[in-house]
Amino acid sequence: MKILLVGASGTLGRAIDAELSADHEILRAGRGSGDFRVDLRDDASVAELFRATGKVDAIVAASGNVHFGPLAEMTPAQFDSGLQDKLLGQVRLALIGQHHLNDGGSITLTTGILAEEPIRQGANATAVNAAVEGFARAAACELGRGLRINVVSPNALQESWEGYRAYFPGFEPVPAARAALAYRRSVEGVQSGRVYKVW
Amino acid sequence: MKILLVGASGTLGRAIDAELSADHEILRAGRGSGDFRVDLRDDASVAELFRATGKVDAIVAASGNVHFGPLAEMTPAQFDSGLQDKLLGQVRLALIGQHHLNDGGSITLTTGILAEEPIRQGANATAVNAAVEGFARAAACELGRGLRINVVSPNALQESWEGYRAYFPGFEPVPAARAALAYRRSVEGVQSGRVYKVW
Repeated sequence: MKILLVGASGTLGRAIDAELSADHEILRAGRGSGDFRVDLRDDASVAELFRATGKVDAIVAASGNVHFGPLAEMTPAQFDSGLQDKLLGQVRLALIGQHHLNDGGSITLTTGILAEEPIRQGANATAVNAAVEGFARAAACELGRGLRINVVSPNALQESWEGYRAYFPGFEPVPAARAALAYRRSVEGVQSGRVYKVW
Repeated sequence: MKILLVGASGTLGRAIDAELSADHEILRAGRGSGDFRVDLRDDASVAELFRATGKVDAIVAASGNVHFGPLAEMTPAQFDSGLQDKLLGQVRLALIGQHHLNDGGSITLTTGILAEEPIRQGANATAVNAAVEGFARAAACELGRGLRINVVSPNALQESWEGYRAYFPGFEPVPAARAALAYRRSVEGVQSGRVYKVW
């Protein structure tokens, strides 16, 4: 398969690349690095990405930022920054990308354990992740041509654990390579509308 | 209690008003009608609302629009319109409103059955509703001073069923008066982080 991987240079992206590249052709895209440059916050940039790649068999998004900060100090603008980046960015990739997938192709988006398990300062992350999962749940029912859409929800990653452990008390980090297996399940599997939890 | 009700003139808002007004003082707010005018899409308008109301004991939001349309034709801008209105509008009311609640006060937001049960053309609605529920789930863990936050998720309303029934095949509409009971549970109850489903 020809797989477009957005966020290919991140910790998770590199693990997905390593998991899938022996069996598939990986088109690596990112905001600041990769064979293809794309800003998921911009319609024209995403359209240009697909003009450059041509039709693909799978789209995988492993990118997106949310706002972390105390609820008592959070501003609507800060909350919106996560909506525009990790939520609408991935939705934009899916909405535009659906027209550039071969029949039977798939879209795989990324959320995280905070969708269901809140942490301190994580209200934006929980909302954004829940929304991405909701989008996939609904979009799966409407996609035609055998297209599928799923979400992978990893726990905190072992590779970035030192920076995150204070915010995730008692959480059990997972290796990025284990999270990457879930992307293979989504890309090569048969299900749609699923959230593959790696926790 | 002194209860701020945003969206007071809508079908749901009027039912909430009828349910609560015998026992509480209701401050009725809306975009185009009510004792207090507010545009939840605008920080300054929400701040002005609370300057006008002073401290309250409960904030109830029964307003917000989402985009309905086929997934294959949906644009990122259309998707964002629902994020800005029903999602960020209610979040803005909560983020700013938390500082204008008396100790032990509550915030009650509104989603809908589409959060969990997708319909055709409803991908934006499902994502927006899931995000609002995620926000409340996480915010409930961080609020101080005994403040609480909950969500009411009604089914389609009997009062507006004629216009909606084609989009909700086999759904069982509920009277707005029954949905209104859930707002009383949230406002007068003890729970926080709950989604009260009226379906």
